[in-house]
Amino acid sequence: MNGGALERHYRDYLAALDDRRFEDLPAFVADELTYNEASLSAARYRALLEDDVRRIPDLSFDVQHLVVAGDHVAARLRFDCTPVETFHGFEPTGSRVVFTEHVFYRFRDDRIVQVWSLLDVAALQRQLGRPES
Amino acid sequence: MNGGALERHYRDYLAALDDRRFEDLPAFVADELTYNEASLSAARYRALLEDDVRRIPDLSFDVQHLVVAGDHVAARLRFDCTPVETFHGFEPTGSRVVFTEHVFYRFRDDRIVQVWSLLDVAALQRQLGRPES
Repeated sequence: MNGGALERHYRDYLAALDDRRFEDLPAFVADELTYNEASLSAARYRALLEDDVRRIPDLSFDVQHLVVAGDHVAARLRFDCTPVETFHGFEPTGSRVVFTEHVFYRFRDDRIVQVWSLLDVAALQRQLGRPES
Repeated sequence: MNGGALERHYRDYLAALDDRRFEDLPAFVADELTYNEASLSAARYRALLEDDVRRIPDLSFDVQHLVVAGDHVAARLRFDCTPVETFHGFEPTGSRVVFTEHVFYRFRDDRIVQVWSLLDVAALQRQLGRPES
């Protein structure tokens, strides 16, 4: 894929997540991948994504910025959502929270084989208070 | 600049920081920029960088991953360093800490005009304890 095609493919991946079409993930995610240095199966990755949307039913992926080159995508994603269960150790308050994620992906044969993600934990702390120990 | 030239230019910027050649920053940083949505002068940006290396004298910038396209650079940076003063609210312990930063830059006329940075605050918390209130 060239850069434009990979960008469209990545946006299709996020659209699948927005639409909760988890059954479409095999088109976007390799059978085995690494996530922040940990090895994961596609099934485990799907389970983590499903868990996120269970905790945040209105989760949607707003692309603020994309950099695409070769097999690599870097994205700044913005979330404006209302957690209903504990999320990354933060108890829900019933209020919406706004935070960003900076995430790098490596694709192989059009499927994600590596993810490096950082969430804006400081923003979550400011809005939700300190995480439970 | 093409992608290869911008990557070299960005690596030269990090080398200037590693060498504490702050006087070279005008080659890399525009007179006015935005940093995580805040407007900054180049002088203020330099002062923030100088403050970081005062707090972490052995700070150096290890590029783990780069994505470069057009005027945009996305970098995963790794730090392995020993803070000697409070850093992002965390008291120094005398021990080294290892953490990453995911940072996006936009260049104009070869100089940084926009920065979006996220630090791995969770990693800092794990290694340094909770920040002082």
